[in-house]
Amino acid sequence: METNPTEDRTGVLLDARLVTLDGAGGYTVIEDGALAWREGRIDYAGARDAMPATFLQRVRLSAEGALVTPALIDCHTHLVFAGNRATEFEMRLQGATYEEIARAGGGIVSTVRATRAASEEALLAASLPRARALLAEGVTCIEIKSGYGLDFETERRMLRVARRLGEELGVAVRTTFLGLHALPPESSADRAGYVSAVCDDWLPRLAAEGLVDAVDAFCEGIGFTPDEVRRCFEAARHLGLPVKLHAEQLSDLDGAALASGFGALSADHLEWLSERGVAAMARSGTAAVLLPGAFYALRETRQPPIDALREAGVALAVASDLNPGTSPMPSLRLAMNQACVLFRLTPEEALRGVTTHAAQALGLAGERGALKAGFVADFLLWPCAHPAELAYWIGSHPRPRVFVAGQARNDG
Amino acid sequence: METNPTEDRTGVLLDARLVTLDGAGGYTVIEDGALAWREGRIDYAGARDAMPATFLQRVRLSAEGALVTPALIDCHTHLVFAGNRATEFEMRLQGATYEEIARAGGGIVSTVRATRAASEEALLAASLPRARALLAEGVTCIEIKSGYGLDFETERRMLRVARRLGEELGVAVRTTFLGLHALPPESSADRAGYVSAVCDDWLPRLAAEGLVDAVDAFCEGIGFTPDEVRRCFEAARHLGLPVKLHAEQLSDLDGAALASGFGALSADHLEWLSERGVAAMARSGTAAVLLPGAFYALRETRQPPIDALREAGVALAVASDLNPGTSPMPSLRLAMNQACVLFRLTPEEALRGVTTHAAQALGLAGERGALKAGFVADFLLWPCAHPAELAYWIGSHPRPRVFVAGQARNDG
Ligand SMILES: [Zn+2]
Ligand SMILES: [Zn+2]
Repeated sequence: METNPTEDRTGVLLDARLVTLDGAGGYTVIEDGALAWREGRIDYAGARDAMPATFLQRVRLSAEGALVTPALIDCHTHLVFAGNRATEFEMRLQGATYEEIARAGGGIVSTVRATRAASEEALLAASLPRARALLAEGVTCIEIKSGYGLDFETERRMLRVARRLGEELGVAVRTTFLGLHALPPESSADRAGYVSAVCDDWLPRLAAEGLVDAVDAFCEGIGFTPDEVRRCFEAARHLGLPVKLHAEQLSDLDGAALASGFGALSADHLEWLSERGVAAMARSGTAAVLLPGAFYALRETRQPPIDALREAGVALAVASDLNPGTSPMPSLRLAMNQACVLFRLTPEEALRGVTTHAAQALGLAGERGALKAGFVADFLLWPCAHPAELAYWIGSHPRPRVFVAGQARNDG
Repeated sequence: METNPTEDRTGVLLDARLVTLDGAGGYTVIEDGALAWREGRIDYAGARDAMPATFLQRVRLSAEGALVTPALIDCHTHLVFAGNRATEFEMRLQGATYEEIARAGGGIVSTVRATRAASEEALLAASLPRARALLAEGVTCIEIKSGYGLDFETERRMLRVARRLGEELGVAVRTTFLGLHALPPESSADRAGYVSAVCDDWLPRLAAEGLVDAVDAFCEGIGFTPDEVRRCFEAARHLGLPVKLHAEQLSDLDGAALASGFGALSADHLEWLSERGVAAMARSGTAAVLLPGAFYALRETRQPPIDALREAGVALAVASDLNPGTSPMPSLRLAMNQACVLFRLTPEEALRGVTTHAAQALGLAGERGALKAGFVADFLLWPCAHPAELAYWIGSHPRPRVFVAGQARNDG
């Protein structure tokens, strides 16, 4: 925890060009804006001339005309892992077949092997630079999934490391248990046994330790069947845990509708989502998490049905999907640009996708993702004239000044 | 100039895992490598046990096992400009037609207008953060084009700012005069007059001021004809200046062959390059500069003929094409990844594309782009196990430690 706990986290920011993303202010810039907070929570965000005068007695900061937005939220990452898959990436570009790569020990099993072999300290050290890269871009709330352990101890270690990353960097981390990510090699002859261990043994124990904020699964031909996912979601429901799902990435197994039936926070990927799936998500208020990094890296051509989702009123979130195989991309800003270039989101949709809608995808709609009284005072100062610039630049440029709970952070 | 001029820029780096990109060491890692330099130039790069013992008496640094590569070279940028085109980007995604955007003042003319209106100081201030973003990634040699002035004074101001960026950041800048970038609105009734002013008046005056390292043009239906380009290249030849060309980006005008006839350093873009063009480039030793950022941003589908270029032995360089319209991407690392993902280069080709081959595209093959005796001692320390990681990660992660002329730079 690198913030200073002795400060009382109360202050007021003036000369801000505010983009609140709250219903009232929305995406438009409030030119002479002010933002006030107390004990790390916002108590005013709006025009300066409408702010109660007493707030001016607090410690004053000047934004010097910078654009001020809510901090960013990366609502889908697999950022805790050991090793990487650069050699496999190279082999593929040198013309190796998937079989040759598998024989050379590549694929997700290579990440599982490296992650199982890594101590908690080694896993933390490997993951910290990636989390710092996100923080430097203004991401102060990160969802992190397990799923490269596929055994109880390593899944537990991954979730512990996720929590420690949050403490170490002073940012919010939401942990997601993804035991049904892949079938581990040692269980290839006993799918049912693996699913049962994940649902009936590991999940309740990890939840009891406070390591699980949500439960996810990979519903796909190469992952788990809808029946297996249902079994897992029932276990989550029994424990009162919210669910989300990797759905319709490579084929249509009707996963989004299944997840919606459990009131899922989100269904993620969705390139093969059907009309039926869109309607189910709209009914349940399930957010669509778009992951253009994986779409780009896999050179996919089939896009998620953005128009249908938009028309149905489904919240569109955008995330990095940071993972070593299909999206080694520690940049949520780049995901915003890709969402515009590849999926034709507007810059406003891309910004909502990493703020208000990302908060919704994590069950945090009431406290993060907007500049609004009662919300956490995590915000960013950008050297930009217009909020569209945040999606226009390709990559991490420019960098914001980052405030967490009202305190300036310079360690990103 | 932020380096310390009192140091004598002589030293030796040990415990380095060297990737020299020199013929001998090539792309393979020399595990117990050493690098020595004197007055900013390398005098040894190779296995430590083969290094003359006297070099150990110099100031010693330890790379602590980091991967050490030559510094990167961005051989095609338009990074000096004022304003940006985020609003136009947004309008397009909101469904505006090109006509509506043009009526709203968008397109290249908006950048020309903003750049003409900016003072030299304002232009420098606007461009510095972009050059710093490249430097932070390890780019210590940047080509910068004019071409948003389209009048003598503004073209001159752009080139002066390019030179000042180099001095300010202590990096190498190569300036390219791109008067034939677009026909300015005020010359729409007099193409011949504009071309004549560029070739016969502006170019010689700018060259006489030492502001022009090379001459470029945009050979395209929406740019300039082959005859106009030839006129310009003849003027360059008369002044002894090397040429390069924006060729075959949107159509095939046989520009690469034209450029090759002038012994061009490079032909750039090349999505529509013909067999004939490939052969001409191979004969003249003209480098192919691939610009995947523009390909990505414009959602192009036709790829440059990589296989044919490779088979013909044409050097493949990779650059950011950083510009406000078609590639607002201040990241050469991302261009490396895009070259692999979108154009199927191998990670080794991508790395050569931003080092040895980029040096060739700038006429610097004898002094930059490899770790080799006699070359400039610009090098990078990467927290990576394998050089393929430099192209594998999508975006700017991880950051290297940057050395310019043997001196550590921490201001990137
Ligand atoms: Zn995922
Ligand atoms: Zn260009």
